Amino acid sequence: MVNHVDRDTTLCISLAARPSNHGVRFHNWLYAELGLNFLYKAIAPADITAAVAGIRGLNIRGAGVSMPYKGDVIPLIDVLDPSAERIRSVNTIVNDDGHLTGYNTDYTAVINLLRAHDVDPDLHVALRGSGGMANAVIAALTDHGMRGTVVARNHTTGAALAQRYGWEYSAQVPEHAQVLVNVTPLGMNGPDEDVVAFDRDEIDRAEVIFDCVAFPVETPLIRLARSQGKKTIDGGEVAALQAAEQFHLYTGVRPTDEQIIAAEEYAAP
Amino acid sequence: MVNHVDRDTTLCISLAARPSNHGVRFHNWLYAELGLNFLYKAIAPADITAAVAGIRGLNIRGAGVSMPYKGDVIPLIDVLDPSAERIRSVNTIVNDDGHLTGYNTDYTAVINLLRAHDVDPDLHVALRGSGGMANAVIAALTDHGMRGTVVARNHTTGAALAQRYGWEYSAQVPEHAQVLVNVTPLGMNGPDEDVVAFDRDEIDRAEVIFDCVAFPVETPLIRLARSQGKKTIDGGEVAALQAAEQFHLYTGVRPTDEQIIAAEEYAAP
Repeated sequence: MVNHVDRDTTLCISLAARPSNHGVRFHNWLYAELGLNFLYKAIAPADITAAVAGIRGLNIRGAGVSMPYKGDVIPLIDVLDPSAERIRSVNTIVNDDGHLTGYNTDYTAVINLLRAHDVDPDLHVALRGSGGMANAVIAALTDHGMRGTVVARNHTTGAALAQRYGWEYSAQVPEHAQVLVNVTPLGMNGPDEDVVAFDRDEIDRAEVIFDCVAFPVETPLIRLARSQGKKTIDGGEVAALQAAEQFHLYTGVRPTDEQIIAAEEYAAP
Repeated sequence: MVNHVDRDTTLCISLAARPSNHGVRFHNWLYAELGLNFLYKAIAPADITAAVAGIRGLNIRGAGVSMPYKGDVIPLIDVLDPSAERIRSVNTIVNDDGHLTGYNTDYTAVINLLRAHDVDPDLHVALRGSGGMANAVIAALTDHGMRGTVVARNHTTGAALAQRYGWEYSAQVPEHAQVLVNVTPLGMNGPDEDVVAFDRDEIDRAEVIFDCVAFPVETPLIRLARSQGKKTIDGGEVAALQAAEQFHLYTGVRPTDEQIIAAEEYAAP
């Protein structure tokens, strides 16, 4: 990615233990497309406390926050937006003249997608996973009015996540699950890329399939669900929408759907 | 300036209350020319302590330091190179895995230029000025073996500067001055751009004329001295050489003279 830079360029960053190029490509492509004098740089911070000091001290406009820093930054910033307060997890910091606000655009993106896809809140959900992203997704499902069952191999984290949001916990997907949500790496590029995150009969019974895996966008689960004509939400939609929310928070500009799709296509590995 | 940026790009910055575009253009032009995955961004810091924390926390490789921070950063970094220790003034910070070293490449550039131009150390100097850059220049002149007279309208700062380096202080240029050094804004773009920093008879008597004004490179003083066939050192040489020293400290790569001249021509306003 090639971008303009001068003394007036506004700097945005991401903080991740192992940065990807996705945010760099997504944001810088849109800056160029929209003629905004911004620059986005992915950074692996040496020290998260000093890094957040640096956001203030160096007048960095915004910072994406990835694992393992989503909770660590909370005591270091000034205020939490309700999206981050709800789940005690920050994936976006906005700097207004030294005043830092923490947001969670994963939560915002998921709740907006549930509305956009008109998902019936009365359907029973089976959510597989119990990590940080699962926390954002279950909160959004709950605030969309949904309830269901957390399915996780790790009983401790699974049961704790379920309890926090008033859901059930189970090691198995319940038979009455109508919405299947995958928030594990099953189906992601890598060792589990051929694994379908739910069993065939579970998928047959479901009405809605929601896979948070973004690389690839078309996982074995999404492919199977689409072949059956099910309603689907894929991880590419979540990734693009949360990045667009970040983009709007940093720049004040809301890209069109076409621009977001084009940026996501450019950014996808 | 248009530069490549990805997750692996090494970030360098400058810290100045009122950043210019010179460093941005000089460094980024050379990065592109030499195929180095580096990016340089000028920043007006909100807070210098937090900014230096940010250099460490965000793994920023290097930082140029301008007024008014050249002294402020000393207690915030780990060690001073002799170039900065000598004059208690830092214009360059290098970050080696969180260990910050302060340099003064103005000092280094001036002493190297005095050697390159083969300036006779036995000549008597009249140096006009008493600010931060005057401090770097007088130290370099002294360490080149030279002595002379500080000429400044501000008696307090002029006399203190002279005393620190064992020089004389005077309100007037002494008749026996053989090297005239201007470290004031006289002749610089702006209200004093037509002012010749020394009187005509002072110039007539001198052997070497050294003007630290870089914008423009050809000041009225330099033009007059060259028309008389005097040996000259101009501010463009200082600016380019100090920036090249910074460049080498950050990247480990030493550009050729031709590359430095081309970068300086690109960067000059």
